[in-house]
Amino acid sequence: MALRVGDQSRAARNGLREKVLTLDSMNPCVRKVEYAVRGPIVLRALELEQELRQGVKKPFTEVIRANIGDAQAMGQRPITFFRQVLALCVHPDLLNSPDFPEDAKRRAQRILQACGGHSLGAYSISSGIQLIREDVARYIERRDGGIPADPNNIFLSTGASGAIVTVLKLLVAGEGRRRTGVLIPVPQYPLYSATLAELDAVQVDYYLDEERTWALDVAELRRRLSQARDHCCPRALCVINPGNPTGQVQTRECIEAVIRFAFEEGLFLLADEVYQDNVYAEGSQFYSFKKVLTEMGPPYSTQQELASFHSASKGYMGECGFRGGYVEVVNMDPEVQRQMLKLMSVRLCPPVPGQALLDMVVSPPAPSDPSFAQFQEELGLAPDMFFCQRLLEETGICVVPGSGFGQLEGTYHFRMTILPPMEKLRLLLEKLSRFHAKFTREYS
Amino acid sequence: MALRVGDQSRAARNGLREKVLTLDSMNPCVRKVEYAVRGPIVLRALELEQELRQGVKKPFTEVIRANIGDAQAMGQRPITFFRQVLALCVHPDLLNSPDFPEDAKRRAQRILQACGGHSLGAYSISSGIQLIREDVARYIERRDGGIPADPNNIFLSTGASGAIVTVLKLLVAGEGRRRTGVLIPVPQYPLYSATLAELDAVQVDYYLDEERTWALDVAELRRRLSQARDHCCPRALCVINPGNPTGQVQTRECIEAVIRFAFEEGLFLLADEVYQDNVYAEGSQFYSFKKVLTEMGPPYSTQQELASFHSASKGYMGECGFRGGYVEVVNMDPEVQRQMLKLMSVRLCPPVPGQALLDMVVSPPAPSDPSFAQFQEELGLAPDMFFCQRLLEETGICVVPGSGFGQLEGTYHFRMTILPPMEKLRLLLEKLSRFHAKFTREYS
Repeated sequence: MALRVGDQSRAARNGLREKVLTLDSMNPCVRKVEYAVRGPIVLRALELEQELRQGVKKPFTEVIRANIGDAQAMGQRPITFFRQVLALCVHPDLLNSPDFPEDAKRRAQRILQACGGHSLGAYSISSGIQLIREDVARYIERRDGGIPADPNNIFLSTGASGAIVTVLKLLVAGEGRRRTGVLIPVPQYPLYSATLAELDAVQVDYYLDEERTWALDVAELRRRLSQARDHCCPRALCVINPGNPTGQVQTRECIEAVIRFAFEEGLFLLADEVYQDNVYAEGSQFYSFKKVLTEMGPPYSTQQELASFHSASKGYMGECGFRGGYVEVVNMDPEVQRQMLKLMSVRLCPPVPGQALLDMVVSPPAPSDPSFAQFQEELGLAPDMFFCQRLLEETGICVVPGSGFGQLEGTYHFRMTILPPMEKLRLLLEKLSRFHAKFTREYS
Repeated sequence: MALRVGDQSRAARNGLREKVLTLDSMNPCVRKVEYAVRGPIVLRALELEQELRQGVKKPFTEVIRANIGDAQAMGQRPITFFRQVLALCVHPDLLNSPDFPEDAKRRAQRILQACGGHSLGAYSISSGIQLIREDVARYIERRDGGIPADPNNIFLSTGASGAIVTVLKLLVAGEGRRRTGVLIPVPQYPLYSATLAELDAVQVDYYLDEERTWALDVAELRRRLSQARDHCCPRALCVINPGNPTGQVQTRECIEAVIRFAFEEGLFLLADEVYQDNVYAEGSQFYSFKKVLTEMGPPYSTQQELASFHSASKGYMGECGFRGGYVEVVNMDPEVQRQMLKLMSVRLCPPVPGQALLDMVVSPPAPSDPSFAQFQEELGLAPDMFFCQRLLEETGICVVPGSGFGQLEGTYHFRMTILPPMEKLRLLLEKLSRFHAKFTREYS
């Protein structure tokens, strides 16, 4: 040992020391990580932008970045209400300003009350502010038609990515052929492959079926699982629904089949549902894995382990920069859940402004709130248009928004005819009445 | 395999399946993690608070949380200027408000210009907004008396914690006796032990000397390193200066000795300098490892690898909730640096509001700015008091702040006598002139 130190000292005097940390000596798992969303093409795009600024001639005049789901970078304007509440939270002196609507002030005060020292600048508890986890739970319940959600099973995170990495981390164990394998779709969002490489877990690919608009096929899952069992211990199945990058929205039948498969094969389910608000194709509908799992009843509802991820970065708000997200865990071993909380506590807490933003995403203004009209308009839908659209979709009743006839600003109407025969009219009015009650409950 | 699946299916029908993820089957490295800052005592404190709210009698009426460095949770008010700029960034409509000072508006516009889509809601590049990394570089240069800092060597992070974990992750490699060992102080901030456990690296303790106010002793380092080489491959040395939890501020001589030791022994240096603004003991002064390393000249300045961490959570601002931080790397292998950027890119980017906040921390209002007076007052020092205090500390010249005599609001003076003999007076005026030039340079 002494000799070695002496050698190094001599080397030091000669200024000949090698670097401690080199490509050869560094963490080999990190070296294996690949992340194409910000890979060489994106780096080249940065260079091209610089060249354009310097006046270099190209066959185009600007680089359009469609590599990453970043709505605001593309010019989408943030939702005014969200930013008003955040500004009030950041700088509470503004609570005295007449330029902010009362509901935004109430919302900001409510969030600040739940913060340490009533400030966004204090750490929160590691799982996220209690009040916000309660709001997330209520949001999940509304989304899933009343299926209960427990705030204690909800953990706020630094974007959905933070939570996904944490859950994968918990799952990785074993050596050699006993090493944890994780089934992930191909194509996938490369966070999964990158994280599995970093954690030195075994990536088990299953292929989505391009012929059937990238649908998930349980026979393919079964085939890949069986192959993987020869060289690793598959313990988890990742599903991305709606698909990223495919956009495919899974049918309820498909989700049921996946849950049965996971249950029979003893796989922990990770459901990446961050694009749940981005469903466009006619006839498509988003069902959460939690909802389907619960409605399938025992043993699935009582035993199948599930982690469902969501984010404030996608959907209509696209607030990527705030890094707000959460995971809801279902049927997780309580001891493991405590371990997860411990792991999160090492990183102290997710960014508090991102937590506050998530709170607004899960509880946007209600129709009775002063900010509702502007909120709806920013979504491209005036409140009367929104009402009529939902009415048509949910009941088949077609009426006309009041805006088509003119109405006092801040008031909303619809116009309907009473030409149908009495029997049909009675049915129509009953349906309308039930819808109105439900609509009011849902959005207030 | 078929048989096994069949067994599980039967078990499924009987509802007998075990959990996939249990304390026994989970990641054993995570299980080993300990994090006392938020451990059982803190959990008990939460329970006690709840009991007090429910009216249970205790020998105290409130729980005072001194477990974590969270100034704002303890009632410290945030710096107004920082929050004004943040509110303007969050909600740019406020740029038209007459209630915000011009310098706050200029600052917000400057930050927004540097954001994707001019919004905090867009992702930044993974190493952090270029402009802010440039501001951090200038801050480091001022702090270190002009030693250059390269923005390309600065990576913004989710608190200092995020960057510390990333650098440690790069360093972990090898199996068995070749596994990476990392020297950490005892007592330490438990992020280090927790992260080393999670990464399955070997923790090598060195003890700080309580008899000498917790000083670091290089003989102790040498002893522990030599012992550790029997069972692992020590590759990194973590130093926390000023100490956490000890508060000890290392002397320049000590830092030089540590750097020589690290160089001779081939250790990558991690300098946790998040408490650099919290130096209180008389005669103590903070020297950054970067400054000392550079001033030691070659081969240290040209070869010793160093990562220095800082944060927006500590110091006078204590903005923990925003999770702003950075690492500056020195002499890092460029290939490894690219790997670090790749690793960070998997998590997309640090929270953008935290980046914005860090920008203000590294470039607070200058004396010529409208917000300077309030900023100084919030630090407990009016600008004239601040000037006189620095003058005394740096030159030995003792004058009286104008506030002691009364002055027009927004103007600042000092009062000096010209009683010293001519020779001394000449010297005094020369010193004063040099100081004034330096002060103006430093704070504008």
